Amino acid sequence: MPDVSKRGVRMPESPIRKLVPFADQAKAKGIKVYHLNIGQPDLPTPRVAIEAIQKIDRHTLEYSPSEGIMSYREKLVQYYHRFEIDVSAKDIIITTGGSEAITYAFLACLDPGDEIIVPEPSYANYTAFAIVAGAVVKTVPSKIEEGFALPPIEQFEALITPRTKGIMICNPNNPTGYLYTQSEMNAIRDLVKKYDLYLFSDEVYREFCYTGAPYISAFHLEGIEENIILVDSVSKRYSECGLRVGALITKNKEVFNNVLKFCQARLSPPLIGQIAAEASLDTPAEYMLEVYNEYLERRNFIVDGLNRIDGVYSPIPMGAFYTVAKLPIDDSDKFCEWLLSNFQYENQTIFMSPAAGFYTTPGLGKNEVRIAYVLKKKDLAVSLKILEEALKVYPGRV
Amino acid sequence: MPDVSKRGVRMPESPIRKLVPFADQAKAKGIKVYHLNIGQPDLPTPRVAIEAIQKIDRHTLEYSPSEGIMSYREKLVQYYHRFEIDVSAKDIIITTGGSEAITYAFLACLDPGDEIIVPEPSYANYTAFAIVAGAVVKTVPSKIEEGFALPPIEQFEALITPRTKGIMICNPNNPTGYLYTQSEMNAIRDLVKKYDLYLFSDEVYREFCYTGAPYISAFHLEGIEENIILVDSVSKRYSECGLRVGALITKNKEVFNNVLKFCQARLSPPLIGQIAAEASLDTPAEYMLEVYNEYLERRNFIVDGLNRIDGVYSPIPMGAFYTVAKLPIDDSDKFCEWLLSNFQYENQTIFMSPAAGFYTTPGLGKNEVRIAYVLKKKDLAVSLKILEEALKVYPGRV
Repeated sequence: MPDVSKRGVRMPESPIRKLVPFADQAKAKGIKVYHLNIGQPDLPTPRVAIEAIQKIDRHTLEYSPSEGIMSYREKLVQYYHRFEIDVSAKDIIITTGGSEAITYAFLACLDPGDEIIVPEPSYANYTAFAIVAGAVVKTVPSKIEEGFALPPIEQFEALITPRTKGIMICNPNNPTGYLYTQSEMNAIRDLVKKYDLYLFSDEVYREFCYTGAPYISAFHLEGIEENIILVDSVSKRYSECGLRVGALITKNKEVFNNVLKFCQARLSPPLIGQIAAEASLDTPAEYMLEVYNEYLERRNFIVDGLNRIDGVYSPIPMGAFYTVAKLPIDDSDKFCEWLLSNFQYENQTIFMSPAAGFYTTPGLGKNEVRIAYVLKKKDLAVSLKILEEALKVYPGRV
Repeated sequence: MPDVSKRGVRMPESPIRKLVPFADQAKAKGIKVYHLNIGQPDLPTPRVAIEAIQKIDRHTLEYSPSEGIMSYREKLVQYYHRFEIDVSAKDIIITTGGSEAITYAFLACLDPGDEIIVPEPSYANYTAFAIVAGAVVKTVPSKIEEGFALPPIEQFEALITPRTKGIMICNPNNPTGYLYTQSEMNAIRDLVKKYDLYLFSDEVYREFCYTGAPYISAFHLEGIEENIILVDSVSKRYSECGLRVGALITKNKEVFNNVLKFCQARLSPPLIGQIAAEASLDTPAEYMLEVYNEYLERRNFIVDGLNRIDGVYSPIPMGAFYTVAKLPIDDSDKFCEWLLSNFQYENQTIFMSPAAGFYTTPGLGKNEVRIAYVLKKKDLAVSLKILEEALKVYPGRV
């Protein structure tokens, strides 16, 4: 056989997935596993979405337009206006999840060898999508001691080369839950402007900001409108991960047209998903508030609980539904595996994501884990108890 | 702004799409446009699929496994067994349409600069997906005079370089409707074996073979089991283009695992689409027969009608629902545009795809068009009449 592709080989193993076989083994032994490892919300999808799906009664389930259904794009415009994001339907391309939006953004804007700068820890699949585009990810470390605030902009500037084409941020942030401040966003804006970079901004968690601090969209930044490629998705907003409906938004016509070519090649985003996503825009405010309050309560509960455990520290995440916590351990890869394969507390254990997988710089995040608070409070309580007990007996405790 | 990506610029304009603005203008003038340009079946999606969608009543529309829902993969195994394709669930990855299957096959098997050989005319998006992977498409022309039979295998062999990694076929063929014979498939097999190439085989039209000649799947070829990457989709089989559900099938574990990494990065194929696709496997035989007979009748009707028009020639396509016909014209790009912008017959016109877009070699297909017979017979009759009248007055007639 021909050698398997270097590109395939280079693809990093997902930090979320690599321990799945150990979780499966634990379950096979009858151990209950609490999943804190994946951003799969347990909260209900809005009824309006489910009902829209149930009402589908078409003759033929045909291709939708490559750029998405116009009525949905138009309705999204109103949604964005609520966040003072001033875009029009002709700036919006509907994608197959946020994943496709990022992939096509990179493919359309970056040539092989081009570089983007990303604050780390970051969503691990950015690197995967960059590999698809043949692009190179350079990272600037943010620190848990600083609550994962944006590192000084000078550290970004120091990485700029003639191949640097863009900066990628996730705001509110996965995995840290950090919400960038106005002055941090201004610093990013100035750098983007100075070097004429693209700003790839993943804002899928905008509904979940907990501290009263304002959510600053990339589109709130003045003077770089043509540089922005905003990535969005209904997955987290409405607990609709399975629909695979996202969006790429840009006012840059050349980028839009290039992205559209990739969209036309794959013909169509999912039709049923778009119908459900469009209906979701009519989700009552009470639903959104309920979801918001639920996450807020869980956040307070888990962060408080984590910080009560001896040797554990979690900053207070301001948004999304994750936190990165520091544990008194040697190596979170080993610890998370050990939890699944060598530990149980009353026949239960927890599945967390080792944070090293969210860092690019080797050695960083070794004593950190990402916890997704996508479980009910009572399950989070059990999970905290399991973590506490585990840390008492873990052989690699430091 | 940074220069837009060369990759984006290199993406070919879809031969199906580039005339869409002219069609829109014609419609705006009140002209009825018959769409023979796109493989969007007009036939009904099976009721079992629609009903499965209507019955969806879940709490949360969650991610499905990255490799697809296991029950669907298992049920597909039985489907393939009916075609004597001996695969198991662990060989099958569910993808977001056949498009994603091809993209990930190329990404997983080809490095930038690697080459694949494709008989032309071919599905235009193969080139687009190759560009995504940074790979190079080399083509061997098939000829309308030979009914678009596989060109002599020596012509493939002559193109082989150290960078050649695979051969890509579509069988039955889009755009030509050709069905490869056993001896042609054997020739491909021998070449694949001799140079240890991948064989990418797009077999999404297998249900539509009209002549009694056998459908030879790549998996029917002995001795190259590990070299085969089969691409499939429910889009054409069940008129379910909008679901975006395809499959990639390979017994090569290294390829499987590399493809899976790309799948994990994009998290999940569409959940609802998979539920409907799984239900579709219970489509009654009468539905499939009805659809088959409908296409068969249309094929006979359109090919007969085309060949009755003075100066027009269409081979008899053995499968799929397309034909490539030769017209007595100077340039089909011009002719197809002229039909939309300068011609009408009783306030009607037709939209066909210029065939040049399906060829890579410049100059080929200039007097050919692809016609998709995805309209009712009465509409095909009108379309034929329009074509006949148009050819009488087209200024570029030769």
